Amino acid sequence: MTSTLTNCDHILSIPDLIAKKRDGVELNTDEIQQFIAGLSNGDVQDCHVGAMLMAIFIKGMTEKEICSMTTSMRDSGERLHWPQFRGSVVDKHSTGGIGDKISIPLAPALAACQLKVPMMSGRGLGITGGTLDKLESMPGYQTQLTDNQISELISTVGCGIFSQSAKLNPADRYLYSIRDVTATVPSTALIVSSILSKKSVEDVDALVLDIKFGSSAFMKTTEQAENLAHWLYKVSEMLGMRTCCYITEMNNPIGYCIGNAIEIEESIDLMKYKPGHSKDLEDLVCEQGGRLLVLTQKVNTIDEGREMLRETFKNGSALRKFHDMIIAQGVCETVAKQLISDDDNAIGSILKLSDMKYQAISSETGFVQAIDSLKLGTIVQRLGGGRLKSTDKLDFSVGIRLLKHIGDSVEKDEPWATLYAGYDASHHYPKFLDDFNASLTVSASPVVPLQRIYKIMGST
Amino acid sequence: MTSTLTNCDHILSIPDLIAKKRDGVELNTDEIQQFIAGLSNGDVQDCHVGAMLMAIFIKGMTEKEICSMTTSMRDSGERLHWPQFRGSVVDKHSTGGIGDKISIPLAPALAACQLKVPMMSGRGLGITGGTLDKLESMPGYQTQLTDNQISELISTVGCGIFSQSAKLNPADRYLYSIRDVTATVPSTALIVSSILSKKSVEDVDALVLDIKFGSSAFMKTTEQAENLAHWLYKVSEMLGMRTCCYITEMNNPIGYCIGNAIEIEESIDLMKYKPGHSKDLEDLVCEQGGRLLVLTQKVNTIDEGREMLRETFKNGSALRKFHDMIIAQGVCETVAKQLISDDDNAIGSILKLSDMKYQAISSETGFVQAIDSLKLGTIVQRLGGGRLKSTDKLDFSVGIRLLKHIGDSVEKDEPWATLYAGYDASHHYPKFLDDFNASLTVSASPVVPLQRIYKIMGST
Repeated sequence: MTSTLTNCDHILSIPDLIAKKRDGVELNTDEIQQFIAGLSNGDVQDCHVGAMLMAIFIKGMTEKEICSMTTSMRDSGERLHWPQFRGSVVDKHSTGGIGDKISIPLAPALAACQLKVPMMSGRGLGITGGTLDKLESMPGYQTQLTDNQISELISTVGCGIFSQSAKLNPADRYLYSIRDVTATVPSTALIVSSILSKKSVEDVDALVLDIKFGSSAFMKTTEQAENLAHWLYKVSEMLGMRTCCYITEMNNPIGYCIGNAIEIEESIDLMKYKPGHSKDLEDLVCEQGGRLLVLTQKVNTIDEGREMLRETFKNGSALRKFHDMIIAQGVCETVAKQLISDDDNAIGSILKLSDMKYQAISSETGFVQAIDSLKLGTIVQRLGGGRLKSTDKLDFSVGIRLLKHIGDSVEKDEPWATLYAGYDASHHYPKFLDDFNASLTVSASPVVPLQRIYKIMGST
Repeated sequence: MTSTLTNCDHILSIPDLIAKKRDGVELNTDEIQQFIAGLSNGDVQDCHVGAMLMAIFIKGMTEKEICSMTTSMRDSGERLHWPQFRGSVVDKHSTGGIGDKISIPLAPALAACQLKVPMMSGRGLGITGGTLDKLESMPGYQTQLTDNQISELISTVGCGIFSQSAKLNPADRYLYSIRDVTATVPSTALIVSSILSKKSVEDVDALVLDIKFGSSAFMKTTEQAENLAHWLYKVSEMLGMRTCCYITEMNNPIGYCIGNAIEIEESIDLMKYKPGHSKDLEDLVCEQGGRLLVLTQKVNTIDEGREMLRETFKNGSALRKFHDMIIAQGVCETVAKQLISDDDNAIGSILKLSDMKYQAISSETGFVQAIDSLKLGTIVQRLGGGRLKSTDKLDFSVGIRLLKHIGDSVEKDEPWATLYAGYDASHHYPKFLDDFNASLTVSASPVVPLQRIYKIMGST
């Protein structure tokens, strides 16, 4: 009892720290470090985390607090180090959207431009799919790599998309698992510290952040997205990463495909530069990849950057990097060869889609004005393509393929989307067909094509 | 997975409930019941509780929510039932003060007036001592009773002071254990639901609530205390208990004694009506007990009530009930006999006080204006008389005896208090002697004696 009593005169207890934040008082760096250290030394328990996260959610954090939180989380475990590639290590992070497969073609394309991309990625929970889940629809793909495997992968292939290991940023893993079930995910302070502690652990030189706003994004309005971008930029640059933030529209799905296997198919189509591939997706990938080439001074202008990226798709070098990456991450060579072949049947036999198909039909003639990504994302999630609990197993074969994009003309009774539904869809989600058909808005007059990028903030 | 998906269309998940409260939206009765039921069926985990309690702390609860919370907690386990004593079952609850031993003489005195007092009490944490801890300074005293033992005790003796069992109000036990470590104790909604769910489980007809304000109380101001009283009265009457709330001053200690064994000694002195016993304590006990006699219509006026109570001390009937109660709760007859004897040595051999004594000396001549109960309570706590963690073991022999009360005259260099300190006091709390001496404020001009009762609210 002696030591407790003596300590109490000098150091605040964990409940005292929670009380400070509860009352909106700024925590100093030592106090934040004490709380984060407590996550691994046993001083902090689940109930403390729930209460502290809720207090942070409601009361917010100052710039200094967010910085301390981020560095404390970063330092909670091991870090990657790339002294041999200094100046060329990059990454991109998105706050999550429907059909958002940008990372999948982007990482190989950047590797094909001689950049190094140690992309620590996440799983989907809620309606936005996870990059790792999509990649796992390729049989054999391993997301859990050791530090040595990551090091080898970046040195040889140049890119890898893998999960956070137990040794890297354990504080974030712990906090995230609790945020997820305590309604404390959409907090600026917690989002910023979670994203940037992970990126900081990756030891990157430059970073592109894609902050979504809209009906199916965490941030519903441009104001919320801009506020988040402001903090991400501020803290990120403080940590030594050159950072550009894109504020992008997320009412309409990205590209034509939503789901797991089907989004890998669409990503490969772009890397093949296959006719009919999504221009929407291509433009976003080239813009964000081009920006990383500018930030790392591999090119002088964003136009050059975009073109260099696009060239990796046209000349097949991104596709070869993708092929090498998935083999290095556990996909067998036969499967990898089939995936990059021109044989649609071979690809379809690996990236299997459900043969229980439904078509959505337009009830009007006119122009596609909006495609409700919230509805479509919910359908894919509920039919087994996404999770409701972290332990749910995914059905990779569920997905949606759009046949139209914003601005396209559409006839009455013309199909505009296909749903690959799985067999007991109507049992899982009785009104899925109504919602599917109701996801399209048609305008009688011509519609301006989608402007995806609303604003660019930070380093450019 | 099917059932989860189907359920999700109808019932909110636990995180959804937390999110509602986080955003300040009123939870309906079903939702509150779902959360409270989740505490025992495994749906709700510690992290959920931490987050929900913090959201409730910061956002508050409406009257309807507090009522739903209270009844859901009450119904989380078994309840006591007293149909045979209908109209005569009473209790009193205090929000906690320094030297607050009111319950100890009050319960036997009320039993001596033919009322039934099933007093479910708590332990101290923080600087305010717990009634059960004080009682345990009597060797053999058992606080954990079965429902049958409680029933027997109330039927025969008429009063008992015991702890919440695992079967009674398990929701409150769970929530309280988390509130205690997550800085969510001083929340009106949580205090009201915790107190009244316990009292409601006791199946009482009338209730006196003693709400303290001042430097050493949870409520620092009269406004805070009145607000709490307002809610306690409202919810309590809704639950069918006639309730009177006292708002009482808690800057100065109650009576002359602070500690565990020493407060039992002072309680027995009152029950013996021993010359020199504390009038401050006597007046509070007679007022609150007298009020319960009025509320249960045993008397017509508060004056009659006070006198009937006082008479139980003067005629020894309260002391005999106390004697019977402690024997029924495990104290052996020899010890019980010694405690109610007139032999101070016999009493002192059971209620042992530390022989490491210090005296506080007045540095001025004048009148006692204030005695700092926060300082004195902290000294007793830090020297082992109170807990810093729920697992700390208490030293019953630590305590403070005041020799003066507010308004008394005092000479320069005159001792005004004795501290029974325990052997390594200076190690546990190096500046305890400075704080001890600094706890007295002397005025040069005469001081009006303490007005303990600030306001009476509710049924009278």
